[in-house]
Amino acid sequence: MEQRYLDSIEHALAGALERIELPPLLGEPIRYALASGGKRLRPVITLLAAEACGSTSADAAPVAAAIEILHNFTLIHDDIMDRSPLRRGQPTVYQAWDDATAILAGDTMMGIAYQLLSEHYPPAVCRQLVAECSSAFVEVCIGQAEDLAFRTVPSVTMDDYLRMIGRKTARLFATAAVAGGIVAHASHDVLTALRTYGTALGMAFQIRDDVLDLFGSEDFGKELGHDLREGKKTFPTLSAAACATDPDDRAAFAMYLAGTPPRNRDEIERMRERCRRLGALEHAESLIAHYLSTANAALESHLPPTSARDRLCALARATRNRHL
Amino acid sequence: MEQRYLDSIEHALAGALERIELPPLLGEPIRYALASGGKRLRPVITLLAAEACGSTSADAAPVAAAIEILHNFTLIHDDIMDRSPLRRGQPTVYQAWDDATAILAGDTMMGIAYQLLSEHYPPAVCRQLVAECSSAFVEVCIGQAEDLAFRTVPSVTMDDYLRMIGRKTARLFATAAVAGGIVAHASHDVLTALRTYGTALGMAFQIRDDVLDLFGSEDFGKELGHDLREGKKTFPTLSAAACATDPDDRAAFAMYLAGTPPRNRDEIERMRERCRRLGALEHAESLIAHYLSTANAALESHLPPTSARDRLCALARATRNRHL
Repeated sequence: MEQRYLDSIEHALAGALERIELPPLLGEPIRYALASGGKRLRPVITLLAAEACGSTSADAAPVAAAIEILHNFTLIHDDIMDRSPLRRGQPTVYQAWDDATAILAGDTMMGIAYQLLSEHYPPAVCRQLVAECSSAFVEVCIGQAEDLAFRTVPSVTMDDYLRMIGRKTARLFATAAVAGGIVAHASHDVLTALRTYGTALGMAFQIRDDVLDLFGSEDFGKELGHDLREGKKTFPTLSAAACATDPDDRAAFAMYLAGTPPRNRDEIERMRERCRRLGALEHAESLIAHYLSTANAALESHLPPTSARDRLCALARATRNRHL
Repeated sequence: MEQRYLDSIEHALAGALERIELPPLLGEPIRYALASGGKRLRPVITLLAAEACGSTSADAAPVAAAIEILHNFTLIHDDIMDRSPLRRGQPTVYQAWDDATAILAGDTMMGIAYQLLSEHYPPAVCRQLVAECSSAFVEVCIGQAEDLAFRTVPSVTMDDYLRMIGRKTARLFATAAVAGGIVAHASHDVLTALRTYGTALGMAFQIRDDVLDLFGSEDFGKELGHDLREGKKTFPTLSAAACATDPDDRAAFAMYLAGTPPRNRDEIERMRERCRRLGALEHAESLIAHYLSTANAALESHLPPTSARDRLCALARATRNRHL
């Protein structure tokens, strides 16, 4: 990704924090969370979407920063709920500080995100952005609630899973794209195309994330097979479980989905092999390809050809190959 | 308080929740938290402020509900941070469910509050309300961070304490009053008067709350002396500590402020007696009286005489005598 987009996002993030005198107890964990090396994928989408609709990335930078802050806020709180010790290879906020600090730092970030929207946009744009971001936020929370509930429900289907990631992951990608369009005063049709693009890209991104957790390489900052160890219902396990016909496979997935995760490296390796043998990788590739072509078709039929639109399409294609 | 105000708030709260299909894992704790019998003081202030500025309470009901939701959201998260088992005599949300549910229910409420602002107000009013609410929210979080930090700092002064409650408690009262004025398109001077009123009322309210915890009657739904048991730096302890001259008193407060709370009923009773003997009650009464006269003077010199203005003044006077 071109450096100027990333610079513009870092600048907007730094500006949002500088304006407020935060006590160290809040300022340090918030800066730590925001500096921990994410790819800034969502805010880059916002900047490119704004440019693709005829506005500038400078106009879109405050809402792009707000969306990145909202995203990091959900990560901080999710890590507490999931008791995840590491994120991007670093201790999570509740690990580096404590639960109370992580809860409060997250809450504060939410306030800062909305301050950005009210301070940088004219009233009509501000109202549209607040509506879009707050609806997205409620849906992300519902998705997280479903994800938590899935852990104790043995009968999760692929449809349940796709609906859950549609909320927990894809909705914020959709909002990132739509927000760029709102800043650029895009038409209803163009906003719909941006929503289709963001949603489909988010779906592909999450399925790829699930696949990487199981089949990726270790240099990704997370331990491999973490989802399996946690007994999570992910794309590869649900896809393989649905394809299992052999009694031994069926029994293994029934046990896994009922809440008995593999306990050691050998058992993890055996589950990974089952998933591979039952075609989980190929199913994931084909669904990812479907989502990415949906994403790019929406842009190509509703937005004029610009270099920003090309970059959005390239970004989608990159999801197909990332880190595998 | 007149029933029609309370009805209008309950109606707006119910409407905000009905529109969204919340899974039970979120809907139940959110409804539980909102139904747990608070006095709805902040939203009532919003409705009265709107009427006092020439608008209707119907116009102000959505932002009043948003402020009540924001307030309850902070209570849910504060109770996790403080490990408080009871609130208004009922188990707190994290006790009745668990930490993860309480974190997520709170987060969702924040999203719902901003949805109300974007859906019910014209763009210019929406933007002003979002600016006011999000700045307030960041300040409430900073106040909570200071409150948490105070627990491990022995040198907290009365000034530190007053600044902290100005953020943690009084700021949302100020926003409740100002929001009513924003809905009514009040002038800058009137908004400033409403801010003075809300801030002063909030300060009086919190000092009264601290006093009640130590000297109130047990039927308040909380165990008495809870703050003392927790070693909290409250108005009565800081006021008494500042007035202590006797070496025995000085040693007792030095120990308390350094983080050694009383361990049993006898020790609590002795601390309570020290606070009483050193004039904590009288100092509280006199400061409360000062804040309440500031609050009402602001309204009486900047708002026309209406029954809504009279009710706001009566509400301030009621703070002086509540539950003692």
